[in-house]
Order: sequence, then C-alpha cells, then structure tokens
Amino acid sequence: MFSGRDTLMRKLLVSLVAALLLTVTGVPHAQADEGMWTYDNFPSALVQQKYGVKIDQAWLDKVRLATVRLSGCTASFISPDGLILTNHHCSAQCLAEISDAQHDTLRDGFLAQQRGEEKSCPSQLADVLVGMEDISSKIVAAIKGKDDKAANDARKKTLTQLESACEQAAGKKNPLKCQSVQLYQGGQYFLYKYKRYNDVRLVFAPEQAIAAFGGDPDNFQFPRWCLDMSVLRAYEDGKPVKTANFLKVNWQGPAEKEPVFVTGHPGSTDRLLTVAQLKQLRDLDLPTWLLRASELRGRYIQYGKTGAEPLRVISDPLNGLENSIKVRRKQLDALHDDAMLTEKIKQEKQLRDRIAGDTSTAATTGDPWGEIEKALAVERGIAMPYTFIEAGAGFNSQLYRYAKALVRSATERAKPNDERLREFTDGALPLLQRQLTTQVPVYPDREVLTLSFGFERMREWLGPDHPMVRALLKTESPDGLAARLLRDTKLADPAVRRQLWEGGAAAIAASGDPLIKLALQVDPEARALRKRYEDEVEAPVDSASEKIAAWRYTVYGTSVYPDATFTLRLNFGTVQGWNESGTPVPAFTQLATAFERSTGADPFRMPESWLKVKSQLDMTTPFNFSTNNDIVGGNSGSPLINAQGEIVGLMFDGNIHSISGSYWFDTAKNRAVAVHPRIIREALTKVYSASTLSKELGL
Amino acid sequence: MFSGRDTLMRKLLVSLVAALLLTVTGVPHAQADEGMWTYDNFPSALVQQKYGVKIDQAWLDKVRLATVRLSGCTASFISPDGLILTNHHCSAQCLAEISDAQHDTLRDGFLAQQRGEEKSCPSQLADVLVGMEDISSKIVAAIKGKDDKAANDARKKTLTQLESACEQAAGKKNPLKCQSVQLYQGGQYFLYKYKRYNDVRLVFAPEQAIAAFGGDPDNFQFPRWCLDMSVLRAYEDGKPVKTANFLKVNWQGPAEKEPVFVTGHPGSTDRLLTVAQLKQLRDLDLPTWLLRASELRGRYIQYGKTGAEPLRVISDPLNGLENSIKVRRKQLDALHDDAMLTEKIKQEKQLRDRIAGDTSTAATTGDPWGEIEKALAVERGIAMPYTFIEAGAGFNSQLYRYAKALVRSATERAKPNDERLREFTDGALPLLQRQLTTQVPVYPDREVLTLSFGFERMREWLGPDHPMVRALLKTESPDGLAARLLRDTKLADPAVRRQLWEGGAAAIAASGDPLIKLALQVDPEARALRKRYEDEVEAPVDSASEKIAAWRYTVYGTSVYPDATFTLRLNFGTVQGWNESGTPVPAFTQLATAFERSTGADPFRMPESWLKVKSQLDMTTPFNFSTNNDIVGGNSGSPLINAQGEIVGLMFDGNIHSISGSYWFDTAKNRAVAVHPRIIREALTKVYSASTLSKELGL
Repeated sequence: MFSGRDTLMRKLLVSLVAALLLTVTGVPHAQADEGMWTYDNFPSALVQQKYGVKIDQAWLDKVRLATVRLSGCTASFISPDGLILTNHHCSAQCLAEISDAQHDTLRDGFLAQQRGEEKSCPSQLADVLVGMEDISSKIVAAIKGKDDKAANDARKKTLTQLESACEQAAGKKNPLKCQSVQLYQGGQYFLYKYKRYNDVRLVFAPEQAIAAFGGDPDNFQFPRWCLDMSVLRAYEDGKPVKTANFLKVNWQGPAEKEPVFVTGHPGSTDRLLTVAQLKQLRDLDLPTWLLRASELRGRYIQYGKTGAEPLRVISDPLNGLENSIKVRRKQLDALHDDAMLTEKIKQEKQLRDRIAGDTSTAATTGDPWGEIEKALAVERGIAMPYTFIEAGAGFNSQLYRYAKALVRSATERAKPNDERLREFTDGALPLLQRQLTTQVPVYPDREVLTLSFGFERMREWLGPDHPMVRALLKTESPDGLAARLLRDTKLADPAVRRQLWEGGAAAIAASGDPLIKLALQVDPEARALRKRYEDEVEAPVDSASEKIAAWRYTVYGTSVYPDATFTLRLNFGTVQGWNESGTPVPAFTQLATAFERSTGADPFRMPESWLKVKSQLDMTTPFNFSTNNDIVGGNSGSPLINAQGEIVGLMFDGNIHSISGSYWFDTAKNRAVAVHPRIIREALTKVYSASTLSKELGL
Repeated sequence: MFSGRDTLMRKLLVSLVAALLLTVTGVPHAQADEGMWTYDNFPSALVQQKYGVKIDQAWLDKVRLATVRLSGCTASFISPDGLILTNHHCSAQCLAEISDAQHDTLRDGFLAQQRGEEKSCPSQLADVLVGMEDISSKIVAAIKGKDDKAANDARKKTLTQLESACEQAAGKKNPLKCQSVQLYQGGQYFLYKYKRYNDVRLVFAPEQAIAAFGGDPDNFQFPRWCLDMSVLRAYEDGKPVKTANFLKVNWQGPAEKEPVFVTGHPGSTDRLLTVAQLKQLRDLDLPTWLLRASELRGRYIQYGKTGAEPLRVISDPLNGLENSIKVRRKQLDALHDDAMLTEKIKQEKQLRDRIAGDTSTAATTGDPWGEIEKALAVERGIAMPYTFIEAGAGFNSQLYRYAKALVRSATERAKPNDERLREFTDGALPLLQRQLTTQVPVYPDREVLTLSFGFERMREWLGPDHPMVRALLKTESPDGLAARLLRDTKLADPAVRRQLWEGGAAAIAASGDPLIKLALQVDPEARALRKRYEDEVEAPVDSASEKIAAWRYTVYGTSVYPDATFTLRLNFGTVQGWNESGTPVPAFTQLATAFERSTGADPFRMPESWLKVKSQLDMTTPFNFSTNNDIVGGNSGSPLINAQGEIVGLMFDGNIHSISGSYWFDTAKNRAVAVHPRIIREALTKVYSASTLSKELGL
C-alpha cells in the first residue's frame, strides 16, 4: 500500500485504512525538496509545478534501468558497452583486494589502457532493478489473526516463498534476483526484481590522494576537492555487457539553481521511527558502537605506524571505520539536538491525536507506541550479549565470519527453504557461496588484532564471569586465544572453505579446524540470543510498526515517502550552496584551490601525476559542488541527472549537516556533494591520458 | 553557612535565608546511610540513634588528624613513626616513576627491609587537615551588588587574598597550606588548612598482579580479590615524621552488619547539579571524552604490543585511562537511566515549587535554572575549542604541559598575587616549582604517540580550516609535527626546566625550545578561550548556583551534604552485600577463590610469590568485602574505621553500581569495596616476609 501511480493497484496492508483514503489532509513533506521516493510514487506533478520539469514514465524507466546497485553503493551505466561510473570509495574494497605488498592499487590507482587489461573485482556485483511487484496483500493474508511472534515467523516464511517463486518463474534463461522489500516500517511490502551481473571489472581509478583529498578531516565537509570516481565494466560470459539503457554525461555540468535528480540506493534512514526508538539509538546503540569503533580506530592507526605493509593493510578498513565514526558521531549530535527531538515528539503527538479523534475506525484501538517501548526494554536487557555473541562484535575476524557462515549454512541448507534463517534461503545462497569460495587476501596480523580486540571487549562488556567468556577464554588471554586460533586455522585457503561448503554438515562435523570448532561451540547460544531477539524485540516492534504505518497512511496517504532501505529511490532538488551561521557557502569549488590547499602531507597531498601537468590544467575547472538533494550513504556513486536525463554530476558525499538526514531533512543546511563532470574530463584527458576510456565516453 | 555543630557559628551566604531556618521540613537524605559529610556537620545524633554508636568530638579529631590526602587519593597514618597505609593504585605513579627498563617496580612490587631502603616518591605529597575556617561571609561581602562577571573575578581575588593571609599568619615555623573550598555549589566557602609533608617514601608495594588481580575486567566488580595496598612513610628533615595521631589496625576486621565509617577525600560528585547541567554532561562532556579516551586506549594497547619496554611504559597511563573509561561509561549509563533523571526532575520541581509558594522572602525572584541553561548554551558553542586548545586535549604531552606551565607562570608571576590565574598564586607556586623541576622519566615514543593523537583529533574536531589548526600544522602532518617538536625539545631535562623557571619571562622569551615557542604561540588564543569560558559560562553558573544553594538551604537546611570536592569527608554505613537481580551477593570473599580464579594469564594471574607459599596460607582468610558506605574516587586508600576508631579495612573501589554515585546514592545497590586486614596480615607475614614492617605494625 501507499504506492502506485494507479490507485487501483494499491494493495492495502490493513484493509481498514482503505476506507479512510480520502481523509488525507496533511501533506507534511510535499513542498520541500525532500524525500527518497520510490519509482512507483515519484511526485512528478509537484516537480512540474515547482520547476516546470516534466518527468514522464519514459524518463523514469530509462533512468531506473541505467541505475546500478553495487555493494553498499550506487553507480550508473555510462556507455552502451557496460561501462559503469561510481565513486573511488565504492571500489575501495576491490582496489584493496587486488593489491598486494608490491602493488598498492588502492593508493596508486589503476588504468586499463585496453579492455583486456580490465581487472576482475573479486567481491563486486552489479544489480539493476528491472521490476517491482507489490506483495503487501499477501503478507497481510499470511499474518492475519496471528500473535506477534507467529506473525513474525509467517512474514519471513512468506517472503522466502514469494522470492523463491519469483526466481523460479523467471527461469534460467533470463534469471532474476528477487528480493523482498519492507517499506514504511512494514506499511508496504514489495518484491524487487534485479538483473544481476556477477563479473565486474576495474577500468580506472585515480590515486587515493586525489580521490579522497583531505581524507577523514575533510570527509563530510564542503567546500571540497575530491576526484572520488572510479570506472568499472560489467561483463557477461567473458564479454562486456550491452547496455542500451545508459546515461550520457553532459560534460559542461549543471548551472546554479538548475533542477537536478538523484537516482540511487540510500542505505538507511530512521525518519519514521518512534521517539522511543530514537532514544534507544541515542542512549544505547550509538554510544556503545562509538566506544568500540573509536578504540578499534586507535588500534588500527597505531598498528599502521609499525611499517609500510601494516599501513597498507589497514588503509581500507580504517577509511571505512573513520567514515562510520563520523556518521555516527554526528547522528548522536542530531539526537541530542533538542529542536529535532521536540519536533519528533510533536509529530508523534499529532498523529496520535489525529487517530484518537477519529471515531470512524477501529484503528484507534491499541497502543503500538507503548508496545514498542516494552520491546525496547527487552532489547536493552539482551543488547550486549546479542551484540557480542550473535551480531559479531565479539568475533571480529574475517576468517571467523567464514567459519560462522559455513557452520550455520550447513545446518540451514538441510532445512526446507522457507524454514531457514533468511540469509540462507535459496535466493541468498549463490552470493554466499561466491563470498565463501572466492580468493581474497587475508592478513593474519590484522586478523589477530581485530579478533583479540573482540574477545577483550566481550570480556569487558559481558564480564569475565559470563558463561560464554569463561567457556572461550578458559585459561588463555584474549591475545593468546586469538593468536592460537588464527595460527592453526586453514580457512584462509578458499579450497578449504569450498570443501567445507560442499561437504555440508558432515564435513563441518568432521573438521578439526579451530575456527570451525569455535563457531560450532558458539552457535547454540548465538542462535538462542537471536531467537529471543526476533521473538521478543523484532516481532512486537514489527507488529506495532505496521499498525503505526497504517495510522500514518490514514492521515497522510502517499504524501509521505518510506525510510531508506538500500532500495532504489529518486529525488529532486537544485544546485545550491547554503548559509553557514551567516556566511554563504558557494555551490562550486575550483581546481586552483585544491593546489593551494595541498600541503604535501597526507591527506592534503596532490599526487605527483597532477603536479607534473599542473601548468596544462585549467585552474578554473569546477571541482566539486553541492545540491539540496535528499541523499544518504548508499547514494555514493549515484549519478546526478538533469531534466534531459543526462549525468551532470557524480554524488559522493554530503555536507556535515547531511548526517542528521538519518532522522529528518534539514532544508536549510542539508546538502549533497558531487564531483563535477568538468574535473572528470580534465583528469581523464590531461592527467591520466586515459585515451581509450575517453574515447568510449565521447571525449 | 549550612555548617557547624554550633549554629551560632553559621555564616550565612545570603542573609535572607537565615530567617527561614526554622521552616526546614524536608530531611530527604538523613535516614539512609548516605552522605559525604564535612567534619563540621557530621550527623552524630543520627548515627547514635540508628546504630547506638557515639561519635564524639575526640573521635572526630583523632580520625581527622590521622587522615592523609595524597595526589588524587586518601591514606592514613598507621604508626607513630609516619607510616602511611594506602592503595597500590594510589602509589602507581610513584612506582612507575621509580621504574626503568631494568626494574619494573610497578609490576614487580617493592619492599624496604629497613628504613634506609625506603625510596623517595618524586611526585608524592601528603596533606593533613588541621583546621577549617568558614569564610562565606567574606565572599558574600566581596561579591555583593556585582554582576556575574565582576562577582566571579572578585570571588577569585578574595579567595587568593584569604589563602595568602592564612599562610602568612601561620608563619614559617609551623607552615600551613591554606586552600579555599567551595561547598554546596557555592552555598558555602571555607579555608581548609593543611599540614603538608613534601617527602614521602615508598616502604612496601606488592606485585601489580595481586594488587589489581582481575585487572580492568574486574575493576568496579565485586566479588573481588585484590591486595590493593601499599605502605608509604612521611619524612621531614630526612627523618620519619612523628605522628601521634595514628590509627591502629584491628587485624580481625569487621563483622557483617558492623557499623563502619570512611574518612577521606571523595573527589567529585554532581548530585546537586541542575537537570540541565546533568543533560550537558550526558550529551556533551561524557560522550566526547569517551570517544577520545577510547581511541587513546586503543593506541596505548597496540603500542604496548610492540615490545616489553613499550608495554611497561604504557602500563601506568593505560590503567588510569581504563579506570576512567569504566567510570565515565557507567556515569553515562546512569544519566541515561530514566528513573534517575525522573527523580532529578521531580526534586528540582519540588524545590522550585516550595520556593515559589513561599511569599515571605525575595528568594522567589529570578530564574537561576534558566540562567544556567543560557550559560550552558554558550558552553556548547565553545566547548570544542576550549577542550582542545585551553584544556589540553589538543596538546596531550607531559613535556608540552611543562612548556605551558613555564610560559604561563612567567607571565603570571610578574603580576600581583591576587590578580593571577588561580593556579599560579603564591600558595600554589611551591608545588608547581617542585613539579617542574623534579626529575621524572619521560618516554619519547609515548610522548609522540599522545601529542600526535592530540593534534590529529584537534584537526578532526575543530576542522582542518580552524585558524589554530592551520597555524600549527602548516604543511606538516600531526605525526610529523609531534615527532619534530619532541625530537628538538630539551624540556625532558629538569635542569633546563629549572633554568626557564628561574629565568622567568626573559628566559622564556629568549628560549629557542620548540615546545616553549609553541606554548607561546598558543597562549593568546588559549587565554582568550579561558576568559570567555570564565566570564560567560563559569560566572553566570556560579552566581545562579549560589542562588539555588540558598534556596535549597531555605528548604532543607543542613540535612543536605555538599557535593564531593576532594576535601575531607566522613560517612557511615555497615558491612553488607546486596541483592543483584534476585541473587544475594555475600559481603566477604576468601583467599581460596582467588587461587581458583587464577588462570595464569594476565590479569588473572596469582604471582609466583603467592603460588610458592600457597600451602602455608590460610585459604579461609577473608580477602575483600563490601559495605554500604557512600564513597567515590578520591576515597581510594581511605581507612574503614569501626566505632572504636580502629582500622578494619582499606577502601579501594566500589561495585559497578557505585559509579552512579556521581549523581545519586542508590541505597539498594551502591556498595564500597575494601581490602580485609586479615589478607594484609597474611600477605605481610607469610608471602612477603616483611618482618620489619610487620613488627612496626605490631604483627
């Protein structure tokens, strides 16, 4: 429900709200350039009215089919031969995985002068959303009359069945990856159908020094000077994919105030959470995560000082960690902002009052907000054991994660598909198998660092007398245990992992590998915690959230957009700066300032390649720019598109105020940040002499 | 005001409240075993009524004069020859300072078999409170009619003058250290007069492995098994001090439920803060401190893994940091506890309502709570520059702290005494001089670690474009700048520091030392931030707090005790365990369990000295025990005293619930933790064969 340009298509989750469809009176968000709209509910009329731009179905279809989902990022097809444009930081894992002690590709960049040189990215996938199916009514039917726990089980089972049926219906000739999506906190369910590309190769990446110029200090800041770009290519059967739906780059870029659109996959927002849920984030989730992450940051940094190779090995995870720390730190600030919380309290009261005043429906019964508060109290009680034992904080190691996945999948695969944990359904297994059996570098010292850190903090937070802690450590220290396990395991070898994967439960039971044995030892307690979490936290929260979603729909209809869920969205805005405490921040930066800002010391170091050709560069070239599009993490790599459907920018970040976008959209200050097409052209043609690539792009 | 057994002695800060003295009706705290009572307002009548124990003036005087204040800790005289009993962790700095790469005294312990072997503690002092003088009326007179800023300046000036006059009056033959004390958030001012011992030597310390058995994981936990003791001796003119006022140890220890008393110096509590102040701690101070500290912890730990000497060098600061992290983490939890905040809001409303309903006095005018809120908003605006630039987070280095003190003192000493910053008054200079000119170990690598960490986080939190950050780093990296400064400075040499101290402003101006030059460069901005903080935050908060204190006195009189301020307090309670979520926690632990708990891996490793004599030890010896005395950090090393004035325990910690004692006293669960006299006797006589010491103690 809540969806569809055609109201006849709407499937209502809770049928009673259908009668109230016409009572919609509040349109709280529709006037601001706000919203992460699903493609089936884009406010085209508003855009036409506000900006005189007509977004028709053909425009929407073309842009959607040119939009690519990567692991945690977005990208777009930019040539008919499968060329994909995304951020440098979206290819960082690939760059790290194809690096070794002699070749630091993450640091030094990469350019394939011809197609044969394009390098396979071991872990990268590329998905394109080719279909959407509303399955809300099927979920409603499945959970009808059930209590919270039974409803939660039935919901999952039904989603698995529908995904499986979808993939089977697609067949093997034109296979689809079918993933269910929960929108509006359970107000709506869809099947999203993807064309998946498993073979993605690296074409071009600049040096990290220019891709992330300013590093962590400048991250989420603007003005900015980052060439945060990389180019990939999708292959099928060993050949570049033909991609008729690609977007042309408009190399001039946009004008100030020009209407622009971002298509992509915003990862996660919490704008529709209840006040109690926001407080739980503020008081529990964020502070405890930040404490752990800050210490790990310190350990990584200090480890990186012990040599060139440790520095290289730590670079990718450290960048990711520092990015997350900055995000969560500013999220915490946002949750401490009285103005924001006051507004949330007001909105919640408004909705409750509106519903309470409506006597025409049974929707006024029950207290879903109170039910959520009760579930959150349970969550507080089990949060630490759950976090450390099941969610992985205590077993912080790539090889242990392999072990856990192997151990669990052996049990789960033996069950009927719709009775498995959701991450082991038939639909999920091919990717899991690939992840488990692909060769990627494993760094033993880094593994010891992270695993011993996990053990040590598990002992701190659960206490040395917690049964799990005692059973693990016995007479060993966290360091000693981690070092011994990682010295003796063979799981770094993909052949060993493949043998365990293919051998299933028997192979797991027969394995003497210490990490497999550890995962087996931990599994019963970890599963028990998960079950408790799902039954006593997730189930009541989901039930209550569905009820609140129905109430919200009663009042606001489709004028509200769903929270981000790393599924495809489209939004609109214009190119603009903002006013920072009385000082205007202009929308565009220029190349000249990047050179002025370069100190020669990382992370403010223009690379040699740029210094060498400095005299040939146009110093007035626009570098980065800001817009008021409503985006968050996951939109990294998204194309910025003009009314004509051309790419006029490459999104890579937001300003510091954009981080509060997790909870609300601060119209005055929330800005998205993009790489300008002109600096991309300048770089490809003058700095990197990427002639083949430039030619393919029409430069 | 609020003070004195003799009501005639009461000096009222705000005279109007005097008239209301008899309106006292609420005695909110008097019935629980709660309260950090000043010696002039100990509730002896209540103790007599509740426990049948008579605490008379002679008892109070004797205990007070046997109580010793150390740096951040408490101790007591336990022999007529100046022998001092305190915790191991209270001597940790001394133990680290007398250690070197060949002798890890902090780890391995120390025993002087005779007096000549007792080792001087370079940084240790010992103060005994010999007099208290109420100066509230003088402060009232000094600030009368002044606005907040002028009042703040006048308050400080007057305190300096009174301290100075006090020390001059005492003369040189029997010198006194006179320190002013602000009690009840400014409701009361006293001069506390100390006899100071500058020569303190180490007599005995066990191994860290048994002193802090269980390490950080067991810290603030109970049951517990820590021999957290050390023995010092005060010297004067090279000879042991004669201490007639000493406490005898009762080697049997206390019985369960026995009434017991703790004398000592609780460091800091925030029980009388307003709700807005508590929220500021919750939302700003604690989270930002914890983020920085957690990263530093990670850096220390990882550095400690690079070798035996780094591990030794990091041990003392890491222990302190981990202790503070645990404290602040649980403080944050307490502030997130809805029950606590609800109670605080209720109490605040109660006080406001009581005052508002009282029409007999002008006390009802004004809105001090609102004034505090306004000042806190200013604080939020300057908190980060203040924290990094003036408060030291950005310049985290022992040698930089020397440089800053030398630079500032050169300027301040040239001013009249009462116009100086308070830490440079004549009364403060002797200790400062000693700190600056004493030889203590400086570890260059550790200095680079902490200083570069400070620079890096300053750049992160203030931003790379903050003028101070730009001026400091120019084209250098934080690592590079820190390494260069510390490579070139000569401040590790106490002779160089002495020359700069004695040379004053001229020597400072002529110095080419890079840290001196850096401190000179930073000083103007740092002073400006401090002035802004004092004028716009401290001044209005102090004025408003004084008003609230007067109101509180109007309602509650002396039934309230002041917040802890690291000044001498006395409290009462009984030996008892508690009930932890339905499970009773017994009050006493036994030696046998320590051996059972020993895994052989740090920090659960019984030292060799104990394993060797295990068969000779009485395994039923009580080890640690818990009481419901109301103590916090600063009470470490406090003697636990029975009705007869004998020592029956050595306080060293609280249980995990005691940390919420910063904000309130949780009667059901807050417990203090002590070392039992019998384990001390067992250790001295059987494990360490400390025959001379044992003899002096009558063993």
